[in-house]
Amino acid sequence: MNEFDLIRRYFNVETADHTELGIGDDAAIVRPSPDCDVHVAVDTLVSGRHFFADVDPAALGHKALAVNLSDMAAMGAQPRWALLALTLPRVDDRWLTAFAGGFFALARQYGVTLIGGDTTRGPLTLSITVMGESPRATALCRHAAQPDDDIWVSGQLGLAALALKHHPPGPSAPPADVLAACRRRLEWPSPRVALGLALRPLAHACIDVSDGLMADLGHIVARSGLAAEVWLDALPTHPWLADRRAQHIDCLAAGGDDYELCFTAPAHARGAIAALTPTCPLTRIGRMHAAPGTARLLDSAGNDISIGRSGFDHFQDQA
Amino acid sequence: MNEFDLIRRYFNVETADHTELGIGDDAAIVRPSPDCDVHVAVDTLVSGRHFFADVDPAALGHKALAVNLSDMAAMGAQPRWALLALTLPRVDDRWLTAFAGGFFALARQYGVTLIGGDTTRGPLTLSITVMGESPRATALCRHAAQPDDDIWVSGQLGLAALALKHHPPGPSAPPADVLAACRRRLEWPSPRVALGLALRPLAHACIDVSDGLMADLGHIVARSGLAAEVWLDALPTHPWLADRRAQHIDCLAAGGDDYELCFTAPAHARGAIAALTPTCPLTRIGRMHAAPGTARLLDSAGNDISIGRSGFDHFQDQA
Repeated sequence: MNEFDLIRRYFNVETADHTELGIGDDAAIVRPSPDCDVHVAVDTLVSGRHFFADVDPAALGHKALAVNLSDMAAMGAQPRWALLALTLPRVDDRWLTAFAGGFFALARQYGVTLIGGDTTRGPLTLSITVMGESPRATALCRHAAQPDDDIWVSGQLGLAALALKHHPPGPSAPPADVLAACRRRLEWPSPRVALGLALRPLAHACIDVSDGLMADLGHIVARSGLAAEVWLDALPTHPWLADRRAQHIDCLAAGGDDYELCFTAPAHARGAIAALTPTCPLTRIGRMHAAPGTARLLDSAGNDISIGRSGFDHFQDQA
Repeated sequence: MNEFDLIRRYFNVETADHTELGIGDDAAIVRPSPDCDVHVAVDTLVSGRHFFADVDPAALGHKALAVNLSDMAAMGAQPRWALLALTLPRVDDRWLTAFAGGFFALARQYGVTLIGGDTTRGPLTLSITVMGESPRATALCRHAAQPDDDIWVSGQLGLAALALKHHPPGPSAPPADVLAACRRRLEWPSPRVALGLALRPLAHACIDVSDGLMADLGHIVARSGLAAEVWLDALPTHPWLADRRAQHIDCLAAGGDDYELCFTAPAHARGAIAALTPTCPLTRIGRMHAAPGTARLLDSAGNDISIGRSGFDHFQDQA
């Protein structure tokens, strides 16, 4: 099978709305909606680093796209197009069929068209580019937090990190049903696209929690030139973790791979934000402060909690 | 050094025209020009497959971007934005400084802004997404060739393939000066961006010669539903190769990595196309035919020449 056959067999789909020219030319051509800005982000997943080599390929296809859609969600952008750069050690029909199945199921769910990519031979690596759009000047950016904004987070935190911490499960692992729920969140994250769109008129700054809550909130803090306090006891999580907050601060406040949205909004938006909970659970977890500073995690007595690991970083173990 | 420091140190540049939001948020935001379509392409380079692990990192930075700009050139698009997904085994200051130097020198030359990317740890792999724009419905596509079109190619063919064939140089290698010229073409290709823009009103179909002339022309043939003849004796190349056409048909007609443009145009455009030669050398090498068929390579007597290897294919050595 050559590269062209491979693309035709697994990845060639009909083009859709907003797409002038899809797979099969030197570039794809898209036509953004009138008066819209175009968003673009790329994320790479490396075997052995971001996923286990024996991962379910359907889950991998899902997750590779999901982490990129999560970037669109964090911008309040409508995802529309994706490109897949796939480096494979070999052509394995079952693997590719399952991978494409996971990828396209999620793409269809969000109306995303695969418009191009590249297939090469080498160590298993996926690099996905996703593009979306939003009406001019409506995007949710990291630098837009305001003093006294509430800090909110969607869904539950720490489940993916807990699953990773207990892989393979040892004697200290959580009960099997808890671990299964956590592993599902690690392997099949749900990008918060609908929430991101709904937050456009309500939120100021927004980021997706991919590297750990405190690290990601730290980007909002730094780029907005503000400070933040976060209340450990308020962090939404799985009941099993909620009963063991103190032992699992690392998962809760610094665990990666949550793909929830962390956003700031003015107090007068609380009612409108609470009304979004049918879309997904939303919890108020802290507050922004005016003076430039850091993101602090506080216990119930208002004391600072230090966390050893402030977020996932691919190069942190190197001087 | 963490991922954020790495990006700040080597890859953070000021944003430029057409860019609303560059590096540092969940996605970049660009604002295409009015009434323009947006082009996007991605190419991946894998160490040991597309380049030698000990390649000059400045040349690699140049080439990684050049191959993507070549895709924009082939569409007649104005390149504007790039994203760099860089997977690195380690952080090596000298390597990264040189790589970024090669990348940005070319980016500046073509007015391209690096607006985002991703850095991860793993086997050395580069995946670059490039975006450009063109006024609506002016793009040069593979499917647009017409019967009786001339077939043209820019520059010289086969030099990069010759350099690759003789690396490291053995007893049958060309003279050192020839090999040096060929290696320069392999490592420092010049994307034909200005030519692509100039061809918009003149050419019908266009493709860049990255996988070998006959394979790439084959895409125009297939997508246009036509046939093509190409004259071996007409193929422009280095004088040393021109004197040895018969022995080096593989390099000339099926060698990859040329990054020249192959395009079709009506006979009445010959004068206007010839007037572009100050931009770069352009040679008429064949003709399109009406009946659906293949791309045939002919010798001076009009006989078919068979070439064993019809183009570079990453998966061709696997059943």
